[in-house]
Amino acid sequence: GEENKEEIEELLHYMRVVNAFKGYRKSCLRQLDRCEENFRKLPESHQRMLPAHLRKIEDAKVCVDVNAALINEITSYCSNMFENRQYKELENYTVKHTSFDLDKVKSTLKQIVRDWSADGARERDLCYQPIIDEILVRKPPNTDEVNSVSVLVPGCGLGRLAWEFARRGYFSQGNEFSFYMLFTSHFIINRTQGDNETDFHQYTVHPWVDQRCNNLSWDHAVKAVKFPDVNPGVLAYKNRFSIAAGDFLDIYTQADSWDSVATCYFIDTAHNVISYIERIYHILKSGGVWVNLGPLLYHFYGISNEPSVELSYEEVLDVVEKVGFRIKKNEFLTGMYTSNPESMLKYEYTCAFLVAEKP
Amino acid sequence: GEENKEEIEELLHYMRVVNAFKGYRKSCLRQLDRCEENFRKLPESHQRMLPAHLRKIEDAKVCVDVNAALINEITSYCSNMFENRQYKELENYTVKHTSFDLDKVKSTLKQIVRDWSADGARERDLCYQPIIDEILVRKPPNTDEVNSVSVLVPGCGLGRLAWEFARRGYFSQGNEFSFYMLFTSHFIINRTQGDNETDFHQYTVHPWVDQRCNNLSWDHAVKAVKFPDVNPGVLAYKNRFSIAAGDFLDIYTQADSWDSVATCYFIDTAHNVISYIERIYHILKSGGVWVNLGPLLYHFYGISNEPSVELSYEEVLDVVEKVGFRIKKNEFLTGMYTSNPESMLKYEYTCAFLVAEKP
Repeated sequence: GEENKEEIEELLHYMRVVNAFKGYRKSCLRQLDRCEENFRKLPESHQRMLPAHLRKIEDAKVCVDVNAALINEITSYCSNMFENRQYKELENYTVKHTSFDLDKVKSTLKQIVRDWSADGARERDLCYQPIIDEILVRKPPNTDEVNSVSVLVPGCGLGRLAWEFARRGYFSQGNEFSFYMLFTSHFIINRTQGDNETDFHQYTVHPWVDQRCNNLSWDHAVKAVKFPDVNPGVLAYKNRFSIAAGDFLDIYTQADSWDSVATCYFIDTAHNVISYIERIYHILKSGGVWVNLGPLLYHFYGISNEPSVELSYEEVLDVVEKVGFRIKKNEFLTGMYTSNPESMLKYEYTCAFLVAEKP
Repeated sequence: GEENKEEIEELLHYMRVVNAFKGYRKSCLRQLDRCEENFRKLPESHQRMLPAHLRKIEDAKVCVDVNAALINEITSYCSNMFENRQYKELENYTVKHTSFDLDKVKSTLKQIVRDWSADGARERDLCYQPIIDEILVRKPPNTDEVNSVSVLVPGCGLGRLAWEFARRGYFSQGNEFSFYMLFTSHFIINRTQGDNETDFHQYTVHPWVDQRCNNLSWDHAVKAVKFPDVNPGVLAYKNRFSIAAGDFLDIYTQADSWDSVATCYFIDTAHNVISYIERIYHILKSGGVWVNLGPLLYHFYGISNEPSVELSYEEVLDVVEKVGFRIKKNEFLTGMYTSNPESMLKYEYTCAFLVAEKP
């Protein structure tokens, strides 16, 4: 039946993700080997000009190994993640991954920097802080259990924004679809459980080792980032924080159930952004607040066989009002996404910052 | 023989480029048709929220037609471009183009804005002006024919920077490898020949019509840009300006022949950037100046079967000195490349700005 088909598809997807994680090391090392070969094919006179170049490639290989060891920890830890035993049993089977899947692994490593490192603080200040400030003012938290204030963070990635709300006393739930994100956030949030200083900054990632363009220095390519910058396990009200796996539209169907919804770089991941806006409206309580920040880099744009509706922001605002929201704030803020601060190329987003209220 | 093989390869490449230009309209319209289909598949209630959406897609189709008519003019005009008769005879044959080739066509249209429109003035001020200023001071032009001062602009794209030097009285030659660029610059520079105000601003391009992400408004996607903003035919010393087609390393072999070399977003197009640096040194006269501005977005990075050596900028500087140059200036400037000023996503480059002298 339809349900069984969906289950099998999810299983295959899970296996492909595991396989992509496992394929990271080999793929990156192959690329560095090619770097080495190309360098060795240069005229002798050229090679002599850069006596340290091959050593730098070796340094990069060590970084790849560090990342691969981290990935191994992440995937091992995640075999306990799902109660569904099928996942575990089938882990030894492999489903072929593509270079697209490997790119997801690489961007997941960069996402760690964004969400859980001191290096990501600037990005978080730009993207998360305005959302947090807005919800703090409009829906202040309440430490009293019966009157707790809820925040839903769809597309929560590695979970930092949802965790920031939980830390401030909200009943906070992150929601995420991507297994890449779910594996990694599960590892960071649940493995770092101790109460000591040593429980954070305990892991290392080399986020930029796969990028050999626009480097001012090889030092930047091999840079090590320690994480997490906080201990995610330290929460005054642990039972108020959770991350729910799955598709936003599948999971959140109950009307009038949330005090606030915070979306950051999320709405453009929709096949149909109108459905997202309608659903956010539907699940908010009367008087509830939606805060959105992000660009419109539609996720399914140009991908064949994937329906995609690419509205301009003008149209998005039109839909927001027609769905019934009252727009309380409509501004633009500069944002970044897993930006390498040392790179000669930066992607800068003009993010829509929207505060909308359900009457 | 080897020479014949090269000739055939060039011919096939030429035909593929012509074919890609010709395929632009169909490909873009197909994408807009898909937009339309996806919108029509939305629930009735969603479609009703955006009564103008389908009309906006129709507007975009009109823009694609305008671009296609321009492309048709460009390719028709360029059948006279080469003296080699073979090109003309084989124009009715087609060589299959890829989506990669179509992207080149789309970026060529954006390049028109960068080089030959008033909208590109900001980009040109950031990228070309520092180079022009530096060469004006270090190698001032001389209107006297016998003592003319020469500038070579390898990777000149659509030729604006080379033209700016010619306009200031230099003996200026642009060099370009890409047929996409060569066709288009040939059209703009040679077709706009009149001396009247009407001879510029006479063509229209819709540079952003293929981008449906990160639009604040559909108006931005369908924006019309007039060009050229100057009359390229108006030059006091016409015989001092030329554009040479071909590979930089193949064409420029004569030692001590140029007063200055200006490279803008060029050195990273090399298979081996060391060869470029050596060659620039070789062709400069003693006392000659090389001014470079750009990032290190290596052109052949990650392309299989294409050798690529990706040096960091530190290593580039090391090579520059080892080759024999004296570094006179080593700074960083913000630059952009065919940036859509209205888009919610911008690419910002930290460009190396280097002035080096051959002793």
